[in-house]
Amino acid sequence: MTDTAFQDAYPEALSHCYGCGSNNDHGLQLKSYWDGDETIATYTPRPEHTAIPNFVYGGLLASIIDCHGTGSASAAATKEYGVEGEPALRFVTANLNVDFLAPTPMGVELEARGTIRELKEKKVIVDMVVSANGKPCAKGSVIAVRMPDSMLPND
Amino acid sequence: MTDTAFQDAYPEALSHCYGCGSNNDHGLQLKSYWDGDETIATYTPRPEHTAIPNFVYGGLLASIIDCHGTGSASAAATKEYGVEGEPALRFVTANLNVDFLAPTPMGVELEARGTIRELKEKKVIVDMVVSANGKPCAKGSVIAVRMPDSMLPND
Repeated sequence: MTDTAFQDAYPEALSHCYGCGSNNDHGLQLKSYWDGDETIATYTPRPEHTAIPNFVYGGLLASIIDCHGTGSASAAATKEYGVEGEPALRFVTANLNVDFLAPTPMGVELEARGTIRELKEKKVIVDMVVSANGKPCAKGSVIAVRMPDSMLPND
Repeated sequence: MTDTAFQDAYPEALSHCYGCGSNNDHGLQLKSYWDGDETIATYTPRPEHTAIPNFVYGGLLASIIDCHGTGSASAAATKEYGVEGEPALRFVTANLNVDFLAPTPMGVELEARGTIRELKEKKVIVDMVVSANGKPCAKGSVIAVRMPDSMLPND
């Protein structure tokens, strides 16, 4: 597994995402890494992240898939198309699709694994599986596109 | 618009959802209602619910679509198949699909509108649009299925 999280390579001004921004104190602070050709992120839900008691909230699983997807897209595109010494290329989600395969138990660390299905300079598709105790609970995909300049903060 | 939120008709033991459970103090507490044949829910994101600064986190939009979808499924199925005096029928998400149409501005109330595309006793499909300032920012659908008994709390 690589040492630096994809999200920690984002430009400082673009690191406020609720799901994965290192500058968002209230957020999930998800961190994604390479693991060979795959990408990996782990997250242990907070006690309040329930759907039905004892089971993880689907919106949290969707959020993990969303941020791990855009993070994986950023890392893959930056490796292929980025400029040495420049910040990572930042992607946003155009489409998020999640199949919930089985109720996800609370109280265990979740593991999200991603594979890059399609890699273009401005569009990356990432497929993901989220598992608990080694058992797949959700699978999904993200179509990520390069962040438009119109979203850049003014300050 | 009807008076009682769909989520407030859920059985008490099944009202702990992070997105919409009235018994989840840390959650979003989303409330959905009938508005004619459509369903409606509004939510104003918290300051921390950012993606890029000034724009709403996609995972939050997915969460709103998820909970408004299962809530709408519950209301539609209960109206058609429920038993008078019994709690609402509870649905969970089998598939969640979201297209992000435009960056969603922070600082305004979001409105989610749902329409029932398919209604069966154990499966409901709901289409939704989330708008900010009257402009659609995300559209999505939820395939909701009746909650399996295996998810019922033991206590």
